[in-house]
Amino acid sequence: MSQPNAISQISAGENSVAAVARRARAASRSLARLSLEARNEILTAAAKALEGRAATILEANERDCRAAQPAVDLGTMSPAMFARLRVSERGVAQMAAQVREVARLADPLGRRLAATELDEGLILHKESCPLGVVGVIFESRPDVVPQVSALALKSGNAVILKGGAEAAHTNEALVALWRETLGQFPGVPMDAVTLLHSRADVLELLALDQDVDLIIPRGSYELVRYIMKNSRIPVLGHGEGLCHVYVDSAADIEKAIAVSYDAKVQYPAVCNAAETLLVHQGIAGTFLPPMIAKLREAGVEIRGDAKALAVVANQGVVPATERDWATEYGDLILSVKIVGSLDEAIEHINHYGSRHTDAIVTENSEAAAKFMNEVDAAGVFQNASTRFADGFRYGFGAEVGISTSKLHARGPMGLDGLTTYKYKLYGQGHTVDPYSKGEKKFTHKPLD
Amino acid sequence: MSQPNAISQISAGENSVAAVARRARAASRSLARLSLEARNEILTAAAKALEGRAATILEANERDCRAAQPAVDLGTMSPAMFARLRVSERGVAQMAAQVREVARLADPLGRRLAATELDEGLILHKESCPLGVVGVIFESRPDVVPQVSALALKSGNAVILKGGAEAAHTNEALVALWRETLGQFPGVPMDAVTLLHSRADVLELLALDQDVDLIIPRGSYELVRYIMKNSRIPVLGHGEGLCHVYVDSAADIEKAIAVSYDAKVQYPAVCNAAETLLVHQGIAGTFLPPMIAKLREAGVEIRGDAKALAVVANQGVVPATERDWATEYGDLILSVKIVGSLDEAIEHINHYGSRHTDAIVTENSEAAAKFMNEVDAAGVFQNASTRFADGFRYGFGAEVGISTSKLHARGPMGLDGLTTYKYKLYGQGHTVDPYSKGEKKFTHKPLD
Repeated sequence: MSQPNAISQISAGENSVAAVARRARAASRSLARLSLEARNEILTAAAKALEGRAATILEANERDCRAAQPAVDLGTMSPAMFARLRVSERGVAQMAAQVREVARLADPLGRRLAATELDEGLILHKESCPLGVVGVIFESRPDVVPQVSALALKSGNAVILKGGAEAAHTNEALVALWRETLGQFPGVPMDAVTLLHSRADVLELLALDQDVDLIIPRGSYELVRYIMKNSRIPVLGHGEGLCHVYVDSAADIEKAIAVSYDAKVQYPAVCNAAETLLVHQGIAGTFLPPMIAKLREAGVEIRGDAKALAVVANQGVVPATERDWATEYGDLILSVKIVGSLDEAIEHINHYGSRHTDAIVTENSEAAAKFMNEVDAAGVFQNASTRFADGFRYGFGAEVGISTSKLHARGPMGLDGLTTYKYKLYGQGHTVDPYSKGEKKFTHKPLD
Repeated sequence: MSQPNAISQISAGENSVAAVARRARAASRSLARLSLEARNEILTAAAKALEGRAATILEANERDCRAAQPAVDLGTMSPAMFARLRVSERGVAQMAAQVREVARLADPLGRRLAATELDEGLILHKESCPLGVVGVIFESRPDVVPQVSALALKSGNAVILKGGAEAAHTNEALVALWRETLGQFPGVPMDAVTLLHSRADVLELLALDQDVDLIIPRGSYELVRYIMKNSRIPVLGHGEGLCHVYVDSAADIEKAIAVSYDAKVQYPAVCNAAETLLVHQGIAGTFLPPMIAKLREAGVEIRGDAKALAVVANQGVVPATERDWATEYGDLILSVKIVGSLDEAIEHINHYGSRHTDAIVTENSEAAAKFMNEVDAAGVFQNASTRFADGFRYGFGAEVGISTSKLHARGPMGLDGLTTYKYKLYGQGHTVDPYSKGEKKFTHKPLD
């Protein structure tokens, strides 16, 4: 809804977040006018600029890494976080490659999603178009800057970025380079990409529902919860990733071990890693002992319910508590529960899950269909690791985030998540009056 | 996100709103399992029940109308609102016809929205599915009950309804009849439709983000604003309908008069009626005098800017103020502004509009394309009245509401607005590890 009075009351300076958002809104109107060729040309130029200015980026990153070193030494920054902060020469090349990848993707704009003849000469088109202005709030990894900037440009959106303080110089260098590239094209607004600097800026941004259409937080559970609680703007993201693997009575044991192991061990810190393993009682005796042995070998702590403990008594499994079923460990810890039926597994997941991604291992296609229809999650997998839930792996080219909301975008969000649609109606002076009076009738003929 | 602790802390009674929502959630799981045939069979039975029990519905409605009479006499209930409350025999027949119409619509569930081979034997489907539980809060018109119940059932959703107090008996009779119909089908939960009774119930409902997926308010600006402000659940609706008609310099005068007249006069109280007429200065001299004469004849009060006043000096036009451009009259009042260019018209609409529906009248297809691409609204029309923005007229069979949000659903919302999607991934024991190590590569081949 339009609140022109509210807008005119904002009297902040040129560099206030409100002014940034207003300029981003104006920029978004210009972006929406760019042809696919123009958008791809800019993306190619940005990829080249990344390569050509690798030294500047690495220098800025070196400053961030030096500044972070004391925190690493003190143990207040984890080695994993420090690793995500560091950008290598190969990292810059990958950024450029990703931007080129986005240039290669099909145009997400102006797609005809539906076409109907309402009556003779009265044609309705449903057509994809940009959202407008998107705010992306992320932590540490600076490669988010070119990735999100590329997706936003390709989809005709302006973007306002806020990265982690620890990556300030790197992010600044990347955004400066991107804006410079934009500036080289006549009629293309540099304000299509802006970087915010402080936490206070973020709070201001979250109130600007007139000029910002969507907020995407990427980061810790705490960050996402904070954003969701404080925003007047719609937020898409995932606060939690509590994924399950359910090993059905009709599972192939080899597949079950491979999928469960990968889902837990391959990268335990991420949201699409599994936290709970549900096992049908009919297969627990044959499946669990070798599974637990393999997981224990990889250093995984296993917390089992009473039934699981009975099955794998001597394998160093500790008792699970009610709390475990609701915990995203993000670490080499796995809770294990034995269930009496497929229904019990589905119920457990719908009660404790985070609607992110859950997998069933089974050779029984009926059981798979039931699980995949009834589990309420963005991703439901049969005989595949939960770790596949990712924009690149899904073939989206890149992702701006993963949504556990059911509205608008669900699961990994690529270009589609950054578009909306509008209805275009073409008439010949048509009025509603004769249809209301029954003098004319709608034909409602699908076209295409 | 799952908050099992929060859930278990709710210790309210069986009839609390929390308990209603929990039962609705359970019902939604059963509904999601019903085949298209089963859902359509229930709809047909509900249509028959409406016809067979018309007398009961009319009796209940008579009670509501009698109770409302004093308010009408006192002038606290408008005659228009009273008219919307009253249900005739023909009205009941129309309700039944609408339910049958929904039965005839294509299945919105299980539609394959995309299919990709990620690698050999690893297939990703994007498939439509129900949202789950939807809350619909509406005023006066009891025909919303069968309409929304039918759309919800067809799309596999449970629905929690709250109607206006003035229609309490009618709504109660309609919901009772609907639940009775559901109860006649084994395995179909009556809790698929529930009616709430008080404003306090609504406030409770708005906090239940674990069990309710979407809130759709239908009613006054105040109602919608109240819901949006107080909900922890996503809300889709429209708080305001400030629609524009822009008459371009290349407009056909006859079409311009017909479209503008229909958009203002045909039904001024509704959200898709026009509030502001923008006229290009090049055509104002020929278009405005006959237009204003026709509108004045229909009793429309005209508020013009200085330029408009100069053109139609003797036609009883009063001066408009800044406030007029931001006002949804919902009445026989129209503000008129003369603009110097198409760009000025677009800018005016993007600044003051409500992103609902805006029309251009022009024979110039380039001007139309520019207007339709750059105006930021759910509906952008060429040479057609804004009054066409409606689910029935768009061919959706019925509508649950109109959204001015850009996320999820935009414009009139039919069955599609009540669905989301999930990603189903079918593998053969696939793990992410070999792709991470570069031993395997994704094919990302589009299927179908």
